[in-house]
Amino acid sequence: MKFEFTAARIAQALDGVVDGDENAKIVRVSKIEEGREGSITFLANPKYTPYIYTTNATAIVCSKTFVPEHPISSTLIRVDDPYSSFTKLLVFYQKEKEQKNLKGISRKAHVSWKAKIGKNVYIGDFVSIGAHAEIGDNCKIYPNVTIYPYAKIGKNVLIHAGAIVLNDCEIGDNCILQPGSVVGGDGFGFAPLEDGSYMKIPQTGNVVLKENVEIGTNATIDRATMGSTVIDHGTKIDNLIQIGHNVTIGSDCVIAGQSGIAGSTKMGNNCMIGGQTGVAGHLHIGNGVQCGGKSGIFADVPDNAKLMGAPAFEGHEFKRTYVHFRNLPKIVKEMNELKKQVAELQEQLKNKE
Amino acid sequence: MKFEFTAARIAQALDGVVDGDENAKIVRVSKIEEGREGSITFLANPKYTPYIYTTNATAIVCSKTFVPEHPISSTLIRVDDPYSSFTKLLVFYQKEKEQKNLKGISRKAHVSWKAKIGKNVYIGDFVSIGAHAEIGDNCKIYPNVTIYPYAKIGKNVLIHAGAIVLNDCEIGDNCILQPGSVVGGDGFGFAPLEDGSYMKIPQTGNVVLKENVEIGTNATIDRATMGSTVIDHGTKIDNLIQIGHNVTIGSDCVIAGQSGIAGSTKMGNNCMIGGQTGVAGHLHIGNGVQCGGKSGIFADVPDNAKLMGAPAFEGHEFKRTYVHFRNLPKIVKEMNELKKQVAELQEQLKNKE
Amino acid sequence: MKFEFTAARIAQALDGVVDGDENAKIVRVSKIEEGREGSITFLANPKYTPYIYTTNATAIVCSKTFVPEHPISSTLIRVDDPYSSFTKLLVFYQKEKEQKNLKGISRKAHVSWKAKIGKNVYIGDFVSIGAHAEIGDNCKIYPNVTIYPYAKIGKNVLIHAGAIVLNDCEIGDNCILQPGSVVGGDGFGFAPLEDGSYMKIPQTGNVVLKENVEIGTNATIDRATMGSTVIDHGTKIDNLIQIGHNVTIGSDCVIAGQSGIAGSTKMGNNCMIGGQTGVAGHLHIGNGVQCGGKSGIFADVPDNAKLMGAPAFEGHEFKRTYVHFRNLPKIVKEMNELKKQVAELQEQLKNKE
Repeated sequence: MKFEFTAARIAQALDGVVDGDENAKIVRVSKIEEGREGSITFLANPKYTPYIYTTNATAIVCSKTFVPEHPISSTLIRVDDPYSSFTKLLVFYQKEKEQKNLKGISRKAHVSWKAKIGKNVYIGDFVSIGAHAEIGDNCKIYPNVTIYPYAKIGKNVLIHAGAIVLNDCEIGDNCILQPGSVVGGDGFGFAPLEDGSYMKIPQTGNVVLKENVEIGTNATIDRATMGSTVIDHGTKIDNLIQIGHNVTIGSDCVIAGQSGIAGSTKMGNNCMIGGQTGVAGHLHIGNGVQCGGKSGIFADVPDNAKLMGAPAFEGHEFKRTYVHFRNLPKIVKEMNELKKQVAELQEQLKNKE
Repeated sequence: MKFEFTAARIAQALDGVVDGDENAKIVRVSKIEEGREGSITFLANPKYTPYIYTTNATAIVCSKTFVPEHPISSTLIRVDDPYSSFTKLLVFYQKEKEQKNLKGISRKAHVSWKAKIGKNVYIGDFVSIGAHAEIGDNCKIYPNVTIYPYAKIGKNVLIHAGAIVLNDCEIGDNCILQPGSVVGGDGFGFAPLEDGSYMKIPQTGNVVLKENVEIGTNATIDRATMGSTVIDHGTKIDNLIQIGHNVTIGSDCVIAGQSGIAGSTKMGNNCMIGGQTGVAGHLHIGNGVQCGGKSGIFADVPDNAKLMGAPAFEGHEFKRTYVHFRNLPKIVKEMNELKKQVAELQEQLKNKE
Repeated sequence: MKFEFTAARIAQALDGVVDGDENAKIVRVSKIEEGREGSITFLANPKYTPYIYTTNATAIVCSKTFVPEHPISSTLIRVDDPYSSFTKLLVFYQKEKEQKNLKGISRKAHVSWKAKIGKNVYIGDFVSIGAHAEIGDNCKIYPNVTIYPYAKIGKNVLIHAGAIVLNDCEIGDNCILQPGSVVGGDGFGFAPLEDGSYMKIPQTGNVVLKENVEIGTNATIDRATMGSTVIDHGTKIDNLIQIGHNVTIGSDCVIAGQSGIAGSTKMGNNCMIGGQTGVAGHLHIGNGVQCGGKSGIFADVPDNAKLMGAPAFEGHEFKRTYVHFRNLPKIVKEMNELKKQVAELQEQLKNKE
């Protein structure tokens, strides 16, 4: 996407000072070691200082206090705090890149005349919005999205291509649904019958995402059997994650890719869950819980616990235990040696009698 | 979605008797501890009896024999078996909620004139149905679904938004495809060449789902290299599951979320597979096999085995073994103590000589 | 899909000789044990020889040197190398099956007038192609695909239904995107704020797939924060895999289903990764690395290492260690026995004094 600014314009956006060519043209953001003509990059970590003398980046955001020891060919943009300025720069870049002309409702979309659409909304090609659905102001809905009847989408929500929100589900303000994510598929509920087959238990509830929730690409959040599956504000769900029916997740949790949380489990606030973790159903996970990648949580977890392993237990303990696990061949060998020695001792004592 | 009935109407549907206000208005189904005005809930498990006196639910389904010990403000609907009545109620609720006006073929869909469409079919916006595809009577196909040419869909099949059925695949009567599920993507088959690269082996087979199979959200069932990948009747596949090419799964199995079954494995009937389980390729899994979450199955499994762990073995044995695993630091400490004691004994005996 | 050829026509395609009915009609490819009327099958592995006398297949591809010991009812197509001929046959079959009439741009698609479309391209129903996107010659894009603005698709690329390529991403020549796969969703990057909440870090980079890459059904490849997430030529990614932001994967790797590679990890060439493997972020994985299913890789891996387990270590060592793990109950019992014996020895020695 087109992005082209002068060093001066970027310095202005970052509240910085240009040291070099004010008219230098910037077209992309790069890491310092990958900088090339047209790149802007940054120096925050002193470890990367040597790169500032060798990079081909056109411009570099650095500290006002930075004193070069060698000549630098790049234009410098000097700021108070290069790290936070760089995040600012990324946000600036993103906003500029965003397709400002993505406005209005595509003539190739289908919006039910019974749906309620807010102001300043973008609805892409082949988006289907069902009857009685509500879309808040400033939403952007990319192509091939399906919004079922009676779904409720808040304000400033970004819904990427192919995402699906099923009937009755509620998406809070400022949420982001990455491509292909599904909110409100049926929970996995079946009643066993006497002949060994299963009867589907209708999943009559919904999903509620509070504000500022992000759902990753192709992730799935199941609707509740009754009531709601709830994800509280600020929680970030990575790609290919499954959240089961009637799960409740607190606020400001970060759950990494391919994790799964089974039905009816309640998780507290501010948890950090490593990738490919599985949490069994009907558990209580406290606040501030952290677990490593590939953890398997099969029991309740108290506040602020740090876990590893499957089944998971305290992380440092797991690491110590795993060292012994790896030593098992040596441990068994030593034990066999001990057995021999004890047998010899027994023999010797017997002979003494 | 709108749902509004009087207590009397619901009692009639459940073959029950109203004890209280016949005209009480019911708009939703809730758990007893979450009941509020407009809710109907139920009391089956005696453990929840205290809630019946405190809930704000408008109506409660309970046993004909229930005798309250305190005053109850809710209207009671008395039935013979509250548990089974409640499932009946969910089914009733679901049917009423289902969008009865979802009938006919959206003018924004594209149905090939060479496709064969049954009676009483709903086809949503932006559904593409290819040439020679067949859709049975009473199917409901939600928006943005793609049915490739020569796919065959049975009767009463429900296909949610974004699901995809590829060419030649066959979906049995009464199946449900949850949103974003894919039936018939290519199996993962590549022949290594001498230069280290891979040649794609064409996947010329198909997928056959028998009757009453349910495929979860964003789950993937790969087509066979030759012949068919088969899932037998009544089997339920949860979200984000991968079934590899040429796999055969028996009838009435329940496979929980994010599990994967690699190519050419054959699984029997009535298996229960915990979430995030992996089954390697070319294995035989018996009938009635059960395994815990996160199991890794790398060898054939006999009928009725119950497994845990990765690599998996008998479940109770795994639990016992895992207790010892967690004790490894203590075990190693004890062994070091023993070593010391044996060395002392050896020393003492030597001194005696 | 229709496929119908005589034995003579297939023999010609395979450079083989018909031994039997030249006009025998072939309509499908089958395994030898599943052959039925209309099937063509093959005999390469001598282990399957008995089937050649009992199969109902209409035709069998076998070696020119094969001498039957019993009468055979099927028509034989004799070739120099039955194994490689059979792959050739599958390719022939696939080409014939491919819908040759899938040409041109569906009138139900939407192609931005600012997009650049190559020659001989198929674009299916409800495909959305954004402004400034580029589609190379001979691409096939199935229904309900979304190509964001500024995406670049090479030549001969096959994109199955529901797949999504986001802005600025580049897909090399001859790549295959299976249904529902997503290239270029946002990486999972959030900066923690003082109040415990998270700020989204804009993901301003892209994804680059080099030539001959295949991405499996519902798999997800995240865009880089800055720069590119890169998958080098010939690498095959199975279903439901997550590749994190800024990951680099070398050429000719094969990564099996449901694996995940976390952000910024660099993997070499010719790696083979078993299903459900997790690789942590910021690691270096060498060339030619192999790991078993369900591995958890939490540290750098040298070239040509073969790993198992989670955390993973050398595979043979893991297997030996796991045998001891399973023996832990016996090991503990033996140690308790030893403790008793040592105590007795101590007692006896004491008594002697």
